[in-house]
Amino acid sequence: MFGILATVLMLIWLLHYREGLDLDSSNPYRVFNVHPFLMFFGFIFLVGEAMMAYKTVAADRPIQKYVHMFLNLSALVLGIVGIHATFKFHDKMNILDMYSLHSWIGIGAFCLFILQWLFGFSLFVFPRASVVTRTRLSHWHVLGGRVLLYMAICTALTGLMQKFTFMQLTNNRESYLINFLALSILLFGITVDLSVSLGRYTSHN
Amino acid sequence: MFGILATVLMLIWLLHYREGLDLDSSNPYRVFNVHPFLMFFGFIFLVGEAMMAYKTVAADRPIQKYVHMFLNLSALVLGIVGIHATFKFHDKMNILDMYSLHSWIGIGAFCLFILQWLFGFSLFVFPRASVVTRTRLSHWHVLGGRVLLYMAICTALTGLMQKFTFMQLTNNRESYLINFLALSILLFGITVDLSVSLGRYTSHN
Repeated sequence: MFGILATVLMLIWLLHYREGLDLDSSNPYRVFNVHPFLMFFGFIFLVGEAMMAYKTVAADRPIQKYVHMFLNLSALVLGIVGIHATFKFHDKMNILDMYSLHSWIGIGAFCLFILQWLFGFSLFVFPRASVVTRTRLSHWHVLGGRVLLYMAICTALTGLMQKFTFMQLTNNRESYLINFLALSILLFGITVDLSVSLGRYTSHN
Repeated sequence: MFGILATVLMLIWLLHYREGLDLDSSNPYRVFNVHPFLMFFGFIFLVGEAMMAYKTVAADRPIQKYVHMFLNLSALVLGIVGIHATFKFHDKMNILDMYSLHSWIGIGAFCLFILQWLFGFSLFVFPRASVVTRTRLSHWHVLGGRVLLYMAICTALTGLMQKFTFMQLTNNRESYLINFLALSILLFGITVDLSVSLGRYTSHN
């Protein structure tokens, strides 16, 4: 729900208030706009859905695993395209890369996500380790996933905050839209965490 | 460790690069500087210590509870002073209150924290409910605490990002200092979450 709300708000912002989305456009702002859209919808939203697909949707375990793996893989690919968009924008505008807090946390979260995906892929899709080892490692996979989700949320919020301060918005319609967009991204992250954690409490009892 | 690192970096930033800290100063920037310091050291750091005091420090249960309650109460009081500092700064500078994403998330997290504290205080310090109800409610208290911790971290990072963009820093010493400060705040939050969660896994097994 919050994820869909955030996607809709994001599209209203980018299409109505900003110049729209086009990765191959000659207008650098249209190239840039691909970045927030893909990083939220492609990356955060799909990762959240992948987490919930594994824990809260009733299905056979192997199906859950493949859906979880496939959604995370799609998120990874879309995330790479999204990061590419912002570097392309910086190139066109002659802006320095990777100086801000947003970029530091973002690139850190993304690299750790790739490691987490490879770790999950090698361990769970092709199981060779013993059951005890896998249970112990699965705790780390779950905790790591949660930490990465919150790191991605932090990155999204710092990114929107940066754009917001850069455009020197105060109390106008666009500023409210961006604030509500950011709030729904945060609430999306929180509800994913809660539903996955409550799913775990239920299965324990 | 990360918490102490972040406190040291914060003090270097505010005392060496900025004008220092003084809530009653006539220099509005010195009043403002009280805000990041108290919100991190007074609020996030003490709350994190309170969470770890309850879960990871070996002590009698009642002592753990009182330390947890008392640290959270101190955090609440210091947080109120910290928020007061920023409103005082806005008054002096004629800046609008509460328009930015940082302020929205921050005030939301703080109000929820007060509710969480009252909830915890009424339920655990003066126990009247049955054991089953208390176990169920304690799950919510734990999840709520984690969500609030990450909300507070998000608020801190958006605040630093806002200050960073506002000062138009790029690649200089102060920008690296702020980025490392923000990274250590994030890593402090993550390590608190991990140590509390691993503490729970250990006590389950």
